[in-house]
Amino acid sequence: MTEDPEAPSGGSTDGRRAGLRAALDAVGERWKLLVIASLLEGPRRFGDLERELDGIAPNVLSSRLRALEDDGLVVARPYSERPPRYTYELTDVARGLAGAIDLLAHWGAGGRGGEAPVHEDCGTPLEVGWFCPTCERPVSDADAEELDFA
Amino acid sequence: MTEDPEAPSGGSTDGRRAGLRAALDAVGERWKLLVIASLLEGPRRFGDLERELDGIAPNVLSSRLRALEDDGLVVARPYSERPPRYTYELTDVARGLAGAIDLLAHWGAGGRGGEAPVHEDCGTPLEVGWFCPTCERPVSDADAEELDFA
Repeated sequence: MTEDPEAPSGGSTDGRRAGLRAALDAVGERWKLLVIASLLEGPRRFGDLERELDGIAPNVLSSRLRALEDDGLVVARPYSERPPRYTYELTDVARGLAGAIDLLAHWGAGGRGGEAPVHEDCGTPLEVGWFCPTCERPVSDADAEELDFA
Repeated sequence: MTEDPEAPSGGSTDGRRAGLRAALDAVGERWKLLVIASLLEGPRRFGDLERELDGIAPNVLSSRLRALEDDGLVVARPYSERPPRYTYELTDVARGLAGAIDLLAHWGAGGRGGEAPVHEDCGTPLEVGWFCPTCERPVSDADAEELDFA
C-alpha cells in the first residue's frame, strides 16, 4: 500500500479498497482461495488437494502451490525423498484468511445475509464482527483503533 | 449445492468448500468484488465507479454491472431519461458480503492475521467471529446451530 499524507485520518473507505486490492492480488485467483480453504482444514498432500479440488488440472495446482509458497502463504514439507513428495500446509499469515473464507462460504451456501446461523442458547441469529477476547464483548468500529484499514 | 445423504452430519468442511465455490461463482471475479466494495459505501453513478476503480475499462464495468444485476446483487435506478443514466446500488443479498470484504481488506492491508485492530478500552487485539447480539458474547462453532454451512 502507498502512504498518502493527504489521506483523511478516518479514511476507512479508500483504505478498505486498497486493502481489498492487495488481498485480491495475493489470493484473488479462484483456485488459490480454494487451495487455502482446503489447507485450513489441515495439511494436505498433492493428491488430496487434487481430489478435493475436483476439476483442477495438475499443472494448475502445481503453479498455484508454487505461487502461494513464493508469497509466504504455504509451506511444503517433504515426506518422501524418492520420489520427492511434499505435504502442504498454511503459514500463520494465510491462516489469517480463515474468517474471510468462512464468511464467503456462509454467504455462498445460502446465508447471503439473510440466514445467519443461530445461537443455540437463545435462538438469536448470530452476527459477525470484531470482539474483544478480554472484555468478552463485541466492539464496534468506533471503539477500535486501526479499524480504518488506513 | 448438491445434497449428499452420505455426508457426515457435522460436515462443515465439504459444506464450506461448496459454499465458497458458490460464492466465487457469483462474485469471485476481481472487478465484481471491487464494484461491490465501492457500492457498500453508498449508491454510485457509472462515472463514480470508473473513478474509484481506477484502471477499469468502461466496457468491463458495464459487463460486470450487468452480470451483478442479473444475479440480483445490484439494482440500477434511472436518474436521467435523456440520456438514460443510472445510479447503482446493492441489494440486501449483496450487503451480506460486507463482513467478508472487510476481513479480506483488513488482511490485505497488512493485518494478515498478525496485526489485528486493538480495543481502545483495554488494548487487546480484537478477534473476528460470530457473536450473539442478545447475549452480547462471542459464540464458538460448537454453540451454534447451522454453523456447519451444510
